[in-house]
Amino acid sequence: MKFSIKRSAFIQSLNTVSRAISSKTTIPILTGIKITADAEGLILTGSNADISIETQIKTDNPDNELEITEPGSIVLTAGFFVNIVKKLPDTTMQLTVGNDLQATITSGQSEFTIKGLSASNYPHLPEIDTDDSVTFSGDIFKEIISQTVIAVSTQESRPILTGVHFVLKDGQLLAVATDSHRLSQRVINFSGSDREYNFIIPGKSLSELSRMIEDHQELQMRIAENQVLFIFGDTYFYSRLLEGNYPDTSRLIPEESNTRIQLEAPVLLASIERASLLSHASRNNVVKLTIDPNNAMIKLTGDSPDVGTVEEELEPESVDGDALEISFNPDYVKDALRSFGKTMIQISFSSALRPFTLKPTEDGDSFIQLVTPVRTF
Amino acid sequence: MKFSIKRSAFIQSLNTVSRAISSKTTIPILTGIKITADAEGLILTGSNADISIETQIKTDNPDNELEITEPGSIVLTAGFFVNIVKKLPDTTMQLTVGNDLQATITSGQSEFTIKGLSASNYPHLPEIDTDDSVTFSGDIFKEIISQTVIAVSTQESRPILTGVHFVLKDGQLLAVATDSHRLSQRVINFSGSDREYNFIIPGKSLSELSRMIEDHQELQMRIAENQVLFIFGDTYFYSRLLEGNYPDTSRLIPEESNTRIQLEAPVLLASIERASLLSHASRNNVVKLTIDPNNAMIKLTGDSPDVGTVEEELEPESVDGDALEISFNPDYVKDALRSFGKTMIQISFSSALRPFTLKPTEDGDSFIQLVTPVRTF
Repeated sequence: MKFSIKRSAFIQSLNTVSRAISSKTTIPILTGIKITADAEGLILTGSNADISIETQIKTDNPDNELEITEPGSIVLTAGFFVNIVKKLPDTTMQLTVGNDLQATITSGQSEFTIKGLSASNYPHLPEIDTDDSVTFSGDIFKEIISQTVIAVSTQESRPILTGVHFVLKDGQLLAVATDSHRLSQRVINFSGSDREYNFIIPGKSLSELSRMIEDHQELQMRIAENQVLFIFGDTYFYSRLLEGNYPDTSRLIPEESNTRIQLEAPVLLASIERASLLSHASRNNVVKLTIDPNNAMIKLTGDSPDVGTVEEELEPESVDGDALEISFNPDYVKDALRSFGKTMIQISFSSALRPFTLKPTEDGDSFIQLVTPVRTF
Repeated sequence: MKFSIKRSAFIQSLNTVSRAISSKTTIPILTGIKITADAEGLILTGSNADISIETQIKTDNPDNELEITEPGSIVLTAGFFVNIVKKLPDTTMQLTVGNDLQATITSGQSEFTIKGLSASNYPHLPEIDTDDSVTFSGDIFKEIISQTVIAVSTQESRPILTGVHFVLKDGQLLAVATDSHRLSQRVINFSGSDREYNFIIPGKSLSELSRMIEDHQELQMRIAENQVLFIFGDTYFYSRLLEGNYPDTSRLIPEESNTRIQLEAPVLLASIERASLLSHASRNNVVKLTIDPNNAMIKLTGDSPDVGTVEEELEPESVDGDALEISFNPDYVKDALRSFGKTMIQISFSSALRPFTLKPTEDGDSFIQLVTPVRTF
């Protein structure tokens, strides 16, 4: 194998596939990046147990300044090789691999020779032999990820809850996640496919995918039995799917409420951030919300026996229904509030012990955050 | 105690004294900031075993919007109190302390009550009862610190080497540090004092001081038996001095050389950074420099049996003297090269086993970095 390439283009693609590579893997060849050169260009591959990323650098794109003199393939240790490429002196570089798996990297007056591994020992990527694909706007898919992935469980005791559940049917895409203390659900109208889909993608895969999608990029999705493939730009992103049945979450969302407040998400967020300074110093991380509809006032209080107390008064846009005192983990509510950006929201409570919901005041059924309160008496 | 203050001014001063406070201290009261209010303003104090910082916020500076209603003092847990002040909603805040050492912090609709400690239990700062003071340009003092502190030892086995040795006499200030593998020395002409001074300041204190001095700020220094005080702006910075005799370093610097090269510091730095990617993967972190005066060429090589080899050719500005092969720890030379910025330097070697020096080509006696080579045969 022998090629020369513009270093900045190579670095960008190396960074892309590096996202799938963990230095902690127990399979030595997976600490490497597989590089394959053929007539069309280079294919770079990185992989771990959960996700695999493949990206192409094409010869027919003049920005890449890619010239392939001899096709071939090799696996080079990711961290080490990427650091070398980043620090080379010239704007271009050459990579040459002989029969002995020695890779020689030259750029300007600098020459590195490093040992590679045979690409024939690199595991095969999953095969997704369906032509059925669904196309999303990358921007909307990133928004759905950011709104739901916060409620994904980080506990491996119920593995199914470490993913986001997607259901595509009847012209709608529903995404929902819950760690059993809180729930996030987003629904969008979707007309791109007549087939029904029902699958669970690990939260970690979605977070990684979300960082890679550029603004206004189109995203093609293909589903196989236990794998999903996302295609965007010159990149293929594979993730395993979680197996099993996701719990029925629809019955968790209360339909009625006895107390409702409306206010801007950032106002309540700032108050809860202050109150949680104190609750974090306490063993039980709890703040209390007191709603007084008669005086159109709400109050947030926290106390930590060792440190002190905090009291915050807020004037919401509107308050109606019954008076209520309710306690909750402020971190759950902070995560939920951040997902609304700067919008006006409605929070609906049924009682001090029942879950409460946060929704945007406008278009309230498309997006719901639900939080279970904490019993303090 | 009772006062109101502009929050941004308060935060700035709290950040200043927080630099001295370690949450790891075994003396509980030193996790706190001492706040004293009197007619002139507030005095904030933070301290650990090595350094103490005191800063004043004056009522007569209208930018502070400081109004003291009742004098007094208290000690409040630093991390916690500073976080609260940073997150308060309004541009101003009030602090009120009753007889029970409860501090009430209010701002907008937010009210915190936290427990304080009695200021009478806070340790006294060192007394420096000399009027003898020396004045420096803060910019130059920061430069001296950055050029010497790199060679300070991080090993506690010889505590004296964890400091920078300052000698002020005959119209010159000399600063020198060595960890016995390398040495950094800076000399400046100085006409501010007729007295002779000879003292050792811990490297950590100097690094902290350096971050606090603003550009173009004047720095006043007072020395007592085992303490030094730096005064700049409204801030007093105290550090303990290291006790003992600093080794005589003047005889370590070779006066003659057999091989000399001249080149721009950043060019060699970039080469050594690349070469050290490989040496860091090896058990003995060493790179080799080959100097060939006949071809006006130098070559840098590194190899790691497990990973590979690197070879870098450089064309220096000039080469003269004997041919030489010399090996060294690249990290020491990287630190030294960075201290020269973008200037042209001369590196002078006497033999493969003797220390070599790096100096600026112009004004070469004012600034020397010295590195001991590594024996590889």
